[in-house]
Amino acid sequence: MTPSTATIDTPDATLRARIQDSFDRSGLLRHLGARLGEVVPGRVHIHLPYGPGLTQHLGYFHAGSTTTIADTAGGFAALTLAPPNHTVLSVEFKINLLAPAQGESLEAIGEVVRAGRTLTIVQIDVHALNADKRTPVALMQQTIINLPESS
Amino acid sequence: MTPSTATIDTPDATLRARIQDSFDRSGLLRHLGARLGEVVPGRVHIHLPYGPGLTQHLGYFHAGSTTTIADTAGGFAALTLAPPNHTVLSVEFKINLLAPAQGESLEAIGEVVRAGRTLTIVQIDVHALNADKRTPVALMQQTIINLPESS
Amino acid sequence: MTPSTATIDTPDATLRARIQDSFDRSGLLRHLGARLGEVVPGRVHIHLPYGPGLTQHLGYFHAGSTTTIADTAGGFAALTLAPPNHTVLSVEFKINLLAPAQGESLEAIGEVVRAGRTLTIVQIDVHALNADKRTPVALMQQTIINLPESS
Amino acid sequence: MTPSTATIDTPDATLRARIQDSFDRSGLLRHLGARLGEVVPGRVHIHLPYGPGLTQHLGYFHAGSTTTIADTAGGFAALTLAPPNHTVLSVEFKINLLAPAQGESLEAIGEVVRAGRTLTIVQIDVHALNADKRTPVALMQQTIINLPESS
Repeated sequence: MTPSTATIDTPDATLRARIQDSFDRSGLLRHLGARLGEVVPGRVHIHLPYGPGLTQHLGYFHAGSTTTIADTAGGFAALTLAPPNHTVLSVEFKINLLAPAQGESLEAIGEVVRAGRTLTIVQIDVHALNADKRTPVALMQQTIINLPESS
Repeated sequence: MTPSTATIDTPDATLRARIQDSFDRSGLLRHLGARLGEVVPGRVHIHLPYGPGLTQHLGYFHAGSTTTIADTAGGFAALTLAPPNHTVLSVEFKINLLAPAQGESLEAIGEVVRAGRTLTIVQIDVHALNADKRTPVALMQQTIINLPESS
Repeated sequence: MTPSTATIDTPDATLRARIQDSFDRSGLLRHLGARLGEVVPGRVHIHLPYGPGLTQHLGYFHAGSTTTIADTAGGFAALTLAPPNHTVLSVEFKINLLAPAQGESLEAIGEVVRAGRTLTIVQIDVHALNADKRTPVALMQQTIINLPESS
Repeated sequence: MTPSTATIDTPDATLRARIQDSFDRSGLLRHLGARLGEVVPGRVHIHLPYGPGLTQHLGYFHAGSTTTIADTAGGFAALTLAPPNHTVLSVEFKINLLAPAQGESLEAIGEVVRAGRTLTIVQIDVHALNADKRTPVALMQQTIINLPESS
């Protein structure tokens, strides 16, 4: 889980900057305290440190918290492969909650399964992190649409 | 399916109190400003007034906000029909995002499709509200499991 | 949403003829013995009489049989609202199997939830029919894409 | 993609025999000409050679054919890890159709993601095979329930 080692002049740095910019304009991601992790073509990681504003009634991460970072990781993974001057939108997704989401943080990893001209299919794994232990807590399958950016 | 005119001594008031209690213990729902609406056996409404902490990069409600109240409305709808001394957990759900979630507030309405002994299937509609206009923005199909409450 | 009393010169008859033609060219639908039912703009019914070639190991309709007619009813419902000179393709669907699919026949009813320029969202109910009893056996939520017909 | 090398006295042979028996009692799988492939704990392969009774209107495999073997591979994968004296039932699944299912045969591979006491989550890949080329055509995420066998 090394941070992106891209520096300012590389294509990867440009890619990351584009995604960080979109990330920073999302009020929900800031409000929840999510952070952008690794960004490479076809794969994006999102981190979510535990906090009292993220929980369900038993004190675990709420499915809404888990789903938010899964959907975000998937959408950004699709964005890394979108045609130039296109943005992306979630069409739909399905998530299985595999185990209680209990830990110091969650990490969602979105990986593109198939990038088409119009639609991109992404798979997202979410793990709970505790010290050095990783527990799978959710699995998402997502459909993304590429849309021309309005200028 | 009577409207929620229940007062303190009716079964519906007890039902609502049980769900409000669970609602109030969820840090995420408070953090997002969600509110419990109508509660009747088999159907629960959740409201989410617009705020800057709920948005995606274009200023609409983030899919994570929409999904959080849809999942919550569905889970509570299932809880209204769960066997005594059982709690509920989302097994999985699938959501289609039908239109940009733009408005003064969102309302999610969860209705039980089939309540089984172990599993309950729920369908959830989410609308965006603007003055007196309601626009459908999402449709969810959800699977809930009934679990004995640990004493 | 008029009932299918269309005769040969009406738009509804043209619509039905178009769908019947596509239906008849599907080897699987013939092989399973499926039949086209009511066709109106935004809604299509498919019937599947019981037979020994449709079953799972206990003798009920196999989930594959149920899903085939649900996917078909949904795709055709979308086709009734597709732009001229477009065909449709299933992007994805999610189905909940609500009860054992046991009966003299199955009926799948696909109804369009939202018809967009590119994507159409459809909901499909499947019932098992026994004498005069209808039992809901499956619920599907489906995403369809409109594609220009190659000439 | 080696065939199961299990012989008659091994646990794997017993496992395979149990699944082959269930397979053989499904009228639909016989009617479509599906064949049981590799069987190991947590993973099952199903093959479907092309035939005119499996197609949609353009002559490709119908989504119903693809889905039938995907659901079957997933259910049997779950069955390999089910508790003794339990059978399995599909609760729900979601499938993305990634590309036209065109080829000499399809192969569905179901792999268990998480085997619980009551519910098992499975992921299924379907490929189209042409000479020595494999093309991914579908991706399914499935929820299975373990049920005590009635004696």
